[in-house]
Amino acid sequence: MWEYEQPVNIIFGNGSINKLGKIIEDNGYKRGLLVTSKFFYKSGFAEKLKEDSQNEIIDIFSEVEPNPTIINIDNCAGIIRNNNIGFIVALGGGSVIDCAKASGAVSLTNDSIKKYHGTNLSLPNKSIPIIAIPTTSGTGSEVTCVSVVTDKELGKKTPIVSKSFYPKLALIDPELTYSLPDNITASTGIDVLCHAVEGYWSKGHQPICDALAVHSARLVFDYLERAYLNPRDGVAKEKLAEASIIAGLSFTLPKTTSSHACSFLLTSKYNIPHGEACGLTLDYFTRFNGEKDERVNEFSRLLGFKDANEMADNIYRLKKNIGLLVDLKHLKLTDNDILELVEKSKNANLMNNPIDISDDVLLKMYTTFK
Amino acid sequence: MWEYEQPVNIIFGNGSINKLGKIIEDNGYKRGLLVTSKFFYKSGFAEKLKEDSQNEIIDIFSEVEPNPTIINIDNCAGIIRNNNIGFIVALGGGSVIDCAKASGAVSLTNDSIKKYHGTNLSLPNKSIPIIAIPTTSGTGSEVTCVSVVTDKELGKKTPIVSKSFYPKLALIDPELTYSLPDNITASTGIDVLCHAVEGYWSKGHQPICDALAVHSARLVFDYLERAYLNPRDGVAKEKLAEASIIAGLSFTLPKTTSSHACSFLLTSKYNIPHGEACGLTLDYFTRFNGEKDERVNEFSRLLGFKDANEMADNIYRLKKNIGLLVDLKHLKLTDNDILELVEKSKNANLMNNPIDISDDVLLKMYTTFK
Ligand SMILES: NC(=O)c1ccc[n+]([C@@H]2O[C@H](COP(=O)([O-])OP(=O)(O)OC[C@H]3O[C@@H](n4cnc5c(N)ncnc54)[C@H](O)[C@@H]3O)[C@@H](O)[C@H]2O)c1
Ligand SMILES: NC(=O)c1ccc[n+]([C@@H]2O[C@H](COP(=O)([O-])OP(=O)(O)OC[C@H]3O[C@@H](n4cnc5c(N)ncnc54)[C@H](O)[C@@H]3O)[C@@H](O)[C@H]2O)c1
Ligand SMILES: [Zn+2]
Ligand SMILES: [Zn+2]
Repeated sequence: MWEYEQPVNIIFGNGSINKLGKIIEDNGYKRGLLVTSKFFYKSGFAEKLKEDSQNEIIDIFSEVEPNPTIINIDNCAGIIRNNNIGFIVALGGGSVIDCAKASGAVSLTNDSIKKYHGTNLSLPNKSIPIIAIPTTSGTGSEVTCVSVVTDKELGKKTPIVSKSFYPKLALIDPELTYSLPDNITASTGIDVLCHAVEGYWSKGHQPICDALAVHSARLVFDYLERAYLNPRDGVAKEKLAEASIIAGLSFTLPKTTSSHACSFLLTSKYNIPHGEACGLTLDYFTRFNGEKDERVNEFSRLLGFKDANEMADNIYRLKKNIGLLVDLKHLKLTDNDILELVEKSKNANLMNNPIDISDDVLLKMYTTFK
Repeated sequence: MWEYEQPVNIIFGNGSINKLGKIIEDNGYKRGLLVTSKFFYKSGFAEKLKEDSQNEIIDIFSEVEPNPTIINIDNCAGIIRNNNIGFIVALGGGSVIDCAKASGAVSLTNDSIKKYHGTNLSLPNKSIPIIAIPTTSGTGSEVTCVSVVTDKELGKKTPIVSKSFYPKLALIDPELTYSLPDNITASTGIDVLCHAVEGYWSKGHQPICDALAVHSARLVFDYLERAYLNPRDGVAKEKLAEASIIAGLSFTLPKTTSSHACSFLLTSKYNIPHGEACGLTLDYFTRFNGEKDERVNEFSRLLGFKDANEMADNIYRLKKNIGLLVDLKHLKLTDNDILELVEKSKNANLMNNPIDISDDVLLKMYTTFK
C-alpha cells in the first residue's frame, strides 16, 4: 500500500532562469521577496533578477547562512509579514531554499519556527507561493516537503516536514551551478547519491520513487567525477542537475535514513558540509544493509554492479576521487565524542533504515572512522 | 528543456477501494455521480459502492461503451448538469475513465464534446473533481490528461488533450482486475508496454518520464505472461497494476507515437481492442526506430536486452504467448483497405515518433500484416 503526491511543477533547462519574469507575470504574483545567500548578492545576480522581474520582486533577503538557523528563518518571516509579501523567489542551495520554505509557512502564523523544530507540532498546511531556483546539485529541496533547520543555541540540527513546504514551482537552470567551487560540487553531488540510495532502501520506499532513485543514482555514478574534474563540462553539470531534482523526488516521500541520521551532528558540531557528512557513512551502510536487505543488492544490480558490496566499493572510490572525507581522523575524536555521535545519530531518520541499527553498530562504525 | 507536472494524487494497494467512503468524506465531496460500465452494474458492485459512500454518491451512469462515444459523453454531461453533480467516481477501464473526464469538463460548458473532438479548440481548464478507479491494467487514464473519444457517425477515434482532464485522485486496487477475462488482461497489458516504450522514444521524451517508462516496461516483460496464464496470481496482478499507472505517468506528457497512431482505425473500423491494436505494430516500430534512434537501443539495454531487435523479438513472442494478433490476415484486407489504414495513421500521434514515417513505410508495414 503506497500513496504518492507531487504538487511541484518543474521547469528544467539551460537558460530557463530567463523565464522568471514571464512566470511571475503569468501567475499574477505580486510583491515578491527574493531569498538568497551572500554569494548571489555580492555577484550582483540577485539585483539583476529583481530588475528583470519588472519590480514585482520588491525586496531581497540575503542573510541566509549555510545550514539555516532559527534566527535566519524568524528574521525572514518577519520581513514577509511586515511587507505583505505575496510570493517568494528562493535562489540558492538547499540552505536558501529551506529557509524560504520554513519562513513562508511560519510567516502565516505568529510563531517562531522554534515551536515546530524537533517538536511534534505540525505547521498549518498553508504558505505563500514559492518559486525555488536551486544553485547546487544537491539537496532537491526545490521539490521536497522538508526543511532542515539548525538551532545554534541548542546545537541541534533536524528536519521539519510539512506539506506547506512544497514550492509551487521548481525552476532548474543547470548553468547556475557553473560558479560552484569544486569542493561544493563534490559534497552536494554525493548528497544526491545519498538521497537516491536512501530513498530506495528506506522503510517508506515505494515504486515511483524507486524508479526515480535508480535513474538519479546512475547519473551520479556517471557524471559526478566528470563534473568535479571539469567544472566547465556543460553536459556533466546538466546531468547532475537532473540527478539532483529527480533524487529529490525519490526521497521526499520515503524519507532519508541512516546516512542522513548520522550527518546532523557532523555538520552542526564539526562543520562538515551536509553532503560530505552524509556521504561519509553511505558505503558503510550500503554494505551493512546489503547483508540483510536483498533490495539493496537489487538496486546495485540495476546500476550495473554485482552486488551491494561492489556498489559500496565504488562509492568509496568516488569519494576519494573527488576529495571527500572517508574518515574522521582529522578531528582526533575522543571516546566521549564518539559516544555523543552515537547518541545523536539515534533520531527519526535512523528509524527509516530498513535494518535496525543498534548502538553497537553505530559505535563500531564511528570507531573505524577514528 | 523540459517541463513536468503531475497533479494527480495516487493511492495504491490491494483493498484500497474500501477507503473510498472515507476519501469522499475527508474531501467534503457532495452529490457524486458514479460512472461505470455494464459489467460493474450487473455484478452489483456499483450499487455496493454507492451504499458505502453513505449516500454521497447519488446516481449511477453505467452506459459507457468500450471506446466511449460522443453520445456517451454528452449524455453523461447532461446528467452532471441536470443533477448539480459535485464530484465523479469513475470505476472501470480506460473507456469509463475517459468518458468521466470528458463529461466532467464539458459539463461546465454548454457544448457537445464534438466541438473539441479533432478540432483545434481547447476545453476550458476546469472540471469537477474526479476519483478515478481503474479496473484494467491498462490505459493509465487515471493519471493522464488525455481522453480518447469516438465519433461513430464520422467513424473517427481520436484523443482530446486537456489539463482539465487530470483526476484529483487515482485510487488503484489491483484486486479489481481479478475479474478481467484473459483476453482483456492480454490486450490491456500490451497497451501498458506501448505507453512505456512510446513515452520513452517520443519526440517529447523527458527524464522523469524516461525513468518511469523503464520501470513499467520491465514489469510488463516480467509479469504480463504470468498474469495471463494465472489470473489468480495476486503478485502478477499487483505488478501489472503498478506498471499500468507508472506507464501512464511516463507517457502523459511526452504523448504516444506511431503504434497508437496506427491503432485508431483498427479499433474504430475493425473492432480490434485498443491495446491489441497498439501492440500489433509495436515490435515493427521498435525495429524501425531502433535503426536510427540510439535511445531505443539504450532503452532496450536498460531492460536487459542486447538491442532494439532483441526487444522486438521479445515483444513478438510475448504477443504470441498471450494470444494477441501478430497480423491482420483474418481481415482479408483489400488494397484499398490498406490505403485507408495508411491514410488514417497519419495523425498527430505519428508526428511524435522520433523518426519520420513516410507513406511508403506505412504501406510496407501494413502489407506485411496482410
Ligand atoms: N530540504 C531538503 O529536502 C534537504 C535535503 C538535504 C539537505 N538539506 C539541507 O540543505 C542544506 C545544504 O544545502 P546545499 O548542500 O545545497 O548547500 P548550501 O545551500 O549550504 O550552499 C553551500 C555554499 O555554497 C554556496 N553556493 C550555493 N550555490 C552556489 C553557486 N552556484 N555558486 C557559488 N556558490 C554557491 C552557498 O552560498 C554556500 O556558501 C543543509 O542545511 C542540509 O541539511 C535539505
Ligand atoms: N486516457 C488515456 O490516457 C488512454 C490511454 C490509452 C487508451 N485509452 C482509451 O481507453 C479505452 C480502452 O480502455 P481499456 O483498455 O481499459 O478497456 P475498456 O475500458 O474499454 O474495457 C474493456 C472491457 O473490459 C470490461 N472490464 C473492464 N474492467 C473489468 C474488470 N475488472 N472485470 C471484468 N470486465 C472488465 C469493460 O466493461 C469492457 O467491456 C480506449 O478507448 C482507448 O483508446 C485512453
Ligand atoms: Zn541531503
Ligand atoms: Zn493506449
